[in-house]
Parts: sequence; C-alpha cells; structure tokens
Amino acid sequence: MRVLGIDPGTVTTGYGVIEALNNQLAVVDYGALTCKGRSPIGERLSFMYLKLQGIIEKYQPDAVAVEQPFVAQNVKTALAVGRAQAVAILAGSNRNIPVYEYTPAQVKQRVANYGASSKEQIQEMVRLQLGLPEAPRPSDAADALAIAICHIQETHLARLLAGK
Amino acid sequence: MRVLGIDPGTVTTGYGVIEALNNQLAVVDYGALTCKGRSPIGERLSFMYLKLQGIIEKYQPDAVAVEQPFVAQNVKTALAVGRAQAVAILAGSNRNIPVYEYTPAQVKQRVANYGASSKEQIQEMVRLQLGLPEAPRPSDAADALAIAICHIQETHLARLLAGK
Repeated sequence: MRVLGIDPGTVTTGYGVIEALNNQLAVVDYGALTCKGRSPIGERLSFMYLKLQGIIEKYQPDAVAVEQPFVAQNVKTALAVGRAQAVAILAGSNRNIPVYEYTPAQVKQRVANYGASSKEQIQEMVRLQLGLPEAPRPSDAADALAIAICHIQETHLARLLAGK
Repeated sequence: MRVLGIDPGTVTTGYGVIEALNNQLAVVDYGALTCKGRSPIGERLSFMYLKLQGIIEKYQPDAVAVEQPFVAQNVKTALAVGRAQAVAILAGSNRNIPVYEYTPAQVKQRVANYGASSKEQIQEMVRLQLGLPEAPRPSDAADALAIAICHIQETHLARLLAGK
C-alpha cells in the first residue's frame, strides 16, 4: 500500500509518500510546496492543487491522508485551514483516490502511541520508523510523513480487528 | 462581460451567470447544486468542483465572483465554509479565470445601495435588476446572482473612477 500524507497550508503544504510492504515502511518521497504568501488566493490554491496533482500522478498512491486540525485558533485561521484542506482533498478525490482525515491527536496516538506527544517526539518517531539518518526537514514534510504513517497504522489495525 | 456568481456551500452551492452589455444585465442561467450531506467530504467537494467546471465550460465566464463571509458563526462552520470557498475558487482559477471575493455587506451595498439590507430586499433588487417576473429560487441561486451583480457594479465603478 502506498500512501500520500498531506499537511495542508495556504502558503506551505507538506507532503510525504510512504510505501508499506509486509509491515515494513519505506519513504518514497517527501518535501514542502511553498508559494508566495502575497499572491492572490486563487493563484495560491491552484499552485498547491496542480503540484499535488503532479505528485499523485508521479507516485500513484492508493490513499491520501490529510491532517484535520480539530480546533483552529480562530475563525479567520479556520477559514484558511478549510481552504487548504479542500485543495488537498480535491487533489485526491478528483482522481478517485480515497481521502482520509486525521486529527493531530490521532496522528500522535498512532505514530508515538501517545496522544499528547511533542512535535519533536513525533519527528523522532517518524525518523525511527522510516529508518532515516536524520529527522525529515522541513517540519511540514515530517508532519505529512507522520500523517501517512498514521493512516497505514489505522488500516493495519482495522484489518487485524476484521481478522484479515 | 459575463460573470459567474457562486454562493458556496458543502451541501448546497448556488450559482448564477449574468451577461452585462451596455449597462444592461441579462440572466444567462442560475440554479443550485445539491449533494447528499452524508456523503464523504471528498465526494461532496469533487461533486461541486466538477459541476462548477461544467458550468464554466458551458458559459465561459470572464470572471468568477465568490461570496466570502467575513464572519462565520464558529470555528467548525468556518472550516466548512473555507472548504466550500476553495472549491469555487479552484473551479475558476484552475481555468485561469480571475476570481473575486465579496463579503455579504459589499454585495448588499452594491446590489441595494445599503449594506444592512434584508435578504428579502436583496432578492427583490435582484429580480428588478434582472427583469425577472419572480424572485429567483432557491435562495442560494438568488444569492449567487446578487454576487455576480455586485462584481459587475464594482467593475463598472472601477472603470468610471479610472475615467474609461
């Protein structure tokens, strides 16, 4: 199973592609997409959408996992977060790839077995689970990889529970 | 100039296409797109995106105008509104059509010359300006037509101010 994790933002979007095979995780690619914060919102959203479509076309993931903050600081940031999420969701669903959403607490629970882990703990767990020499940079990319790992663990657990 | 106005929502999205020629406004089409509220968010956003793309392809608007509520009731509705807006924005910007955003107060000011007009007053002004026998239904479509009129008035004013 190949999963594209996305940490969506209207200025910086992290992405990470992970391949899971026989309980082994392998990094395929990761990075961050950054656009000019002062560009019109339409240009920024289109930039993110087209870049994510390119990544999906290149790596053909079986699923897209998107971070869904369960609280935003305020209404204004919530609007921006909602826009960024929609771009990530559309990039997957417009290609008929199933899209899953996870809250930060779910990601922490699945990646580090503890819902209140620090950002640094999560990054270290991502590094260990993927066998990387250093924590992935930038942090948006590390977050995206964590979201992809979260989805793989969720799917694995669901299969175990279903007795498959 | 042909303008597509969009009143975005994740369950119901209103749209209205208006042609402006020599200070005369003419309705081209209007309506509402509705999807099942219980469908996965990816399916709903893709449904809205593909329908809006179809409308854009059919009517080839010169501009897309989207309602941007400047306050949402709470963080949860703000996230949903942001997602719906992003779909409308992407539908235009992915086709290189310029996208404009207007707050409800701007729409009321431009359509009825009064920023605190009631919904009914706006619908009646939309009906009068477009020469329709009755107020357009559903109200999402009427709102979308009002947004399109707002953009046409804004553009007209900007041209007058620029002395063109």
